[in-house]
Amino acid sequence: MAEHGLLASAPWKQLLKHRHDFLVMAKEFNPDLAGHDGASRVKLHFRALEKDGEVSAEKIVTVPSGVSAFDAASWNGIAIDSTCGGYGTCKKCKIQITDGSVEPSKLDFRAFTPDEIQSGWRLACMVRTTKDISIDVPPLTTRPKAATVGVGRQIILRPGIQKRYVELSEPTLSDQRTDIVRLLEAIEDIEPTYSLDILRELPTVLRKNNFKVTAVFADQELIAIEGGDTSEIRYGIAFDLGTTTVVATLIDLNTGAPAAVKSILNKQQPFGADVITRISATMMDPEGLGKLRTLAQETLAQLTREVCEEADVNPLNVYEVAMAGNATMTQIILGIDPEPLGVAPFIMATADYQPVDATELGLSIHPRGKAIILPSLGAYVGGDIVAGALASGMDRDKRLRLFIDVGTNCEIILGNGEKILATAAPAGPAFEAASIKCGVRAAAGAIETVKVVDGKLEIGTIDDAPAIGICGSGLVDAVACLVQLGILDSSGKFNAVDDPNLVERDGEKIYMLTEDVFLSQRDVRELQFAKAAIATGWALLAEEFGIEDKDIQQVLLAGSFGSYLSPASAVKIGLVPKISVLRIVSAGNVAGEGAKMALLSTQERHGAMTLLDEIKYVELSDREDFNDKFVERLAFPV
Amino acid sequence: MAEHGLLASAPWKQLLKHRHDFLVMAKEFNPDLAGHDGASRVKLHFRALEKDGEVSAEKIVTVPSGVSAFDAASWNGIAIDSTCGGYGTCKKCKIQITDGSVEPSKLDFRAFTPDEIQSGWRLACMVRTTKDISIDVPPLTTRPKAATVGVGRQIILRPGIQKRYVELSEPTLSDQRTDIVRLLEAIEDIEPTYSLDILRELPTVLRKNNFKVTAVFADQELIAIEGGDTSEIRYGIAFDLGTTTVVATLIDLNTGAPAAVKSILNKQQPFGADVITRISATMMDPEGLGKLRTLAQETLAQLTREVCEEADVNPLNVYEVAMAGNATMTQIILGIDPEPLGVAPFIMATADYQPVDATELGLSIHPRGKAIILPSLGAYVGGDIVAGALASGMDRDKRLRLFIDVGTNCEIILGNGEKILATAAPAGPAFEAASIKCGVRAAAGAIETVKVVDGKLEIGTIDDAPAIGICGSGLVDAVACLVQLGILDSSGKFNAVDDPNLVERDGEKIYMLTEDVFLSQRDVRELQFAKAAIATGWALLAEEFGIEDKDIQQVLLAGSFGSYLSPASAVKIGLVPKISVLRIVSAGNVAGEGAKMALLSTQERHGAMTLLDEIKYVELSDREDFNDKFVERLAFPV
Repeated sequence: MAEHGLLASAPWKQLLKHRHDFLVMAKEFNPDLAGHDGASRVKLHFRALEKDGEVSAEKIVTVPSGVSAFDAASWNGIAIDSTCGGYGTCKKCKIQITDGSVEPSKLDFRAFTPDEIQSGWRLACMVRTTKDISIDVPPLTTRPKAATVGVGRQIILRPGIQKRYVELSEPTLSDQRTDIVRLLEAIEDIEPTYSLDILRELPTVLRKNNFKVTAVFADQELIAIEGGDTSEIRYGIAFDLGTTTVVATLIDLNTGAPAAVKSILNKQQPFGADVITRISATMMDPEGLGKLRTLAQETLAQLTREVCEEADVNPLNVYEVAMAGNATMTQIILGIDPEPLGVAPFIMATADYQPVDATELGLSIHPRGKAIILPSLGAYVGGDIVAGALASGMDRDKRLRLFIDVGTNCEIILGNGEKILATAAPAGPAFEAASIKCGVRAAAGAIETVKVVDGKLEIGTIDDAPAIGICGSGLVDAVACLVQLGILDSSGKFNAVDDPNLVERDGEKIYMLTEDVFLSQRDVRELQFAKAAIATGWALLAEEFGIEDKDIQQVLLAGSFGSYLSPASAVKIGLVPKISVLRIVSAGNVAGEGAKMALLSTQERHGAMTLLDEIKYVELSDREDFNDKFVERLAFPV
Repeated sequence: MAEHGLLASAPWKQLLKHRHDFLVMAKEFNPDLAGHDGASRVKLHFRALEKDGEVSAEKIVTVPSGVSAFDAASWNGIAIDSTCGGYGTCKKCKIQITDGSVEPSKLDFRAFTPDEIQSGWRLACMVRTTKDISIDVPPLTTRPKAATVGVGRQIILRPGIQKRYVELSEPTLSDQRTDIVRLLEAIEDIEPTYSLDILRELPTVLRKNNFKVTAVFADQELIAIEGGDTSEIRYGIAFDLGTTTVVATLIDLNTGAPAAVKSILNKQQPFGADVITRISATMMDPEGLGKLRTLAQETLAQLTREVCEEADVNPLNVYEVAMAGNATMTQIILGIDPEPLGVAPFIMATADYQPVDATELGLSIHPRGKAIILPSLGAYVGGDIVAGALASGMDRDKRLRLFIDVGTNCEIILGNGEKILATAAPAGPAFEAASIKCGVRAAAGAIETVKVVDGKLEIGTIDDAPAIGICGSGLVDAVACLVQLGILDSSGKFNAVDDPNLVERDGEKIYMLTEDVFLSQRDVRELQFAKAAIATGWALLAEEFGIEDKDIQQVLLAGSFGSYLSPASAVKIGLVPKISVLRIVSAGNVAGEGAKMALLSTQERHGAMTLLDEIKYVELSDREDFNDKFVERLAFPV
């Protein structure tokens, strides 16, 4: 196989060559970033109640400290009423804290009586979770007209899936209108297209149901005719098709509420940890694309079964899905050769897709169900990022904000709602711990947090299990702490300090975090390379924008890894600009949230398309000043 | 099985009950009406020449006397230049009569030198064929902008299938346009939709062909990208999907010229001779619809192979087909339950169809080839008739014209371009000779013409073979002659004349046409029922229109049977209004011609849709005066 064009393109060449060495290793680790890396964690015990007080569902979830109870519920498929975007104005997101105490906010005093506050009632959007608590969630009240999703986005519910129940007059010799005309004349607000399949079913369905039927529309297409009145039943699934982790959220399109959330590893994992190795696989084997496509389809199909089972929803009542994925994942699952994405000049087959049949994604939902594919901005700023920008309101918020989706390929957006710039930085697999000697995927026993307490390192592992290795967020924390303690100097070199844990092995300095888990000099370099790539990315965007780091008002850390990163550590190692940690926000799985929005609102779906015009992609790989900036950013901030 | 709603609807009931008795019999006959029934015939020997004078194709065809040489060629897949609609003005349809003499027309003297006229050169549209002749056809000259089809319709060539050859600039880091945008920005005049398949092929086709490709469009859809310049190669097939006979014409979409014509029996024949028995078959067997669908698909597939083979055209270069069929044939081949068409109040699933994938018709043409389905006006005035009305210019010609497609179900249109009325008359199988004692399908030995010569009957058989029976046109001729000779009275009863051929057998009077072939009293009644149904149809339309029979300026006899009917005989038995036989025109296979027009001109295709609004369907089956009119029309005109 010829060397990848991507790898051959200076000045990324050095960086990518370096990364390339670790690709084989990456295969062995199969990092699962859905497992929640880094930062402080809180455990929330949710119970969803029915009208009679019965518990209908129960779930214990772990989220980064500081996330609102509303977001924590929403991200985990627990439905809480809300129509205002999380600003405490609709006062619908009422929950009851049943174990653990949460200080009431000012708004709680307006929403509740003193007795209710005393009994633990709070507005979920105002509850910042900083310790483990138990929460009861009352049932949804009336059918809402709006829902809150993404980063405080309030959207009016207007799903692409619409249902209309009609009772038609039966045909006579003096009224010989065709079946389709009879149906469509009874539905005034939609003039749909329809396939032959509809015409095949229509005569029978009409006559079997005495001409009382429910028409199901996906946008302007009539996709089903169902006997009787089924207008209250309509579901969709939002997919975040990640290279590593794939998340599915089943949504009740009538209420906008999540009904179930599941995540599993992308079944393509055995073919490599990142998009470049996946593209290689399609190039080396004529059957490769087909194999990878099938694996991605099987991943979505399994998730579909799982969310439908959990929520007890018939998959035939799922009429639409929305999928956010990077350009490579998107082209592969649609069976489009991704090779031109991996070779300079990195060309996509298309940026935007018309809705496709859900069967193209290998899904067994309604046989004429549709799939909305979030559009991509470029070969390395894909549909997941466009979805993330949508969910974060990058085109609406007037503050100067920096959006960073941290991963092997890191996507960066800088904008103030008027002007929006984006770029991609190939950070390599360090954050996914794949190129780290003791790196492990985020599972029980992985070191996920490291803090300095009384001048010493305090290690936190997932599930408090004995440490077996270190995952991405632990790595960032550990390096930040070692710099803070002066064990690493600002150039990233281990100082000659007197610390029993700093030892030498095979001619390399390593720092023992536990008896078995250590951090090597090379590991630190790996992280430096990764964070420098990202920092160079946003620094060049800031220069292009004509602003300085300090002008940035908010940093959104997005993605299944980024969301669990400690803001303080991110600042300390220079991964993000040096601003108040309070302004560094965990944005959650914004790709999935953007996909949700596309399902719940045709206007927002259109907004995703508009973003393609609004965001200007800045290609960094041909910039002559890249290498200089990159070297500058390798050091840790003093 | 319950009695058909169609059969149960008074006042058609008696007529249809009568017809029903003969349906079983009809199965045995399988009449093939493509075999050219009735009237006088001429044999034309065509030779198509290449530029160097070589004979590229040779064909001997039989057509009704009086048909123009141009139409005879066109109907039989022989390409002659013409852009004026057959009015002698374009002077492109030059042919050379090589055997037999044809008087030159006035226009020939303007088009040719005296020497050329002496050598047999004529304008094909001006040559009325009244005897057997041999004709040489020169090759097509420049690429025409218009073509002549149907009944003197001149249409500007603007096929739905368009090709555009482009040479694209290759992508660079500073020009990262997606493949699809790069392609479409180079094609200014079409902003197409496209399927995922196109995106799947595009990256490879572009790169394998150095970004020099031909884009193929079906209307506003991009259906193919072909390497290099293929813009000169594009074909379509026009199908006339009859209940009995199916005709396919392969068309060169670049020139509008026919490349090959083939006709075979509809493979559904074993399921019954008419649409009612076909509908019954789908009702009695849950697999029936699927079986009939497959048989119709196989019929079209066989014809597709045959026309492509004859013209040496690669089926992958056939990008579109157009199909004209009655509502039942149309719904069956598309897999739509036809039951509501056969039961009062006779409801179609739809009148019009969006273009469908040609695979829906079971065709192996270009894998993304399209099928245009001619729209239907009603359950018994189908796409074949709409196509016929289009090809006959029923919406354009200002003359008051009567269009009759004679068959088991007879469709009638009366109009003057401003006001157009249509209806259907269930004539029964008499014209197809199926309910006639000595009736046979039109094949060698069938009596196809009967004339009175010197007071005696002169019998003509197909291929001059010994008579084995009588087919439809022979039946009409025979009855007309017997009435003329006073052997039948005007009520349809055999007179007690002294004629050795008029004998009695089994208590019934029969007339011996040959030693073995005879016409019985009941046969005459069969024909009377059939012609009375038709005459009642047009008489009621005339009444609705507010005109008298004599106001009708032209009668068009259409369909594979009607076109071969003797106008004189049709007048004599009262099948058509009593007007000059010169005004009674054989219109040919207008359904197939209408399908051709839909292929050659998107404007004409749209015209077919417009016809649905312009033509008013008059339902006769609930008219109280029907029975009276019907009885009036049973007699032969005096």
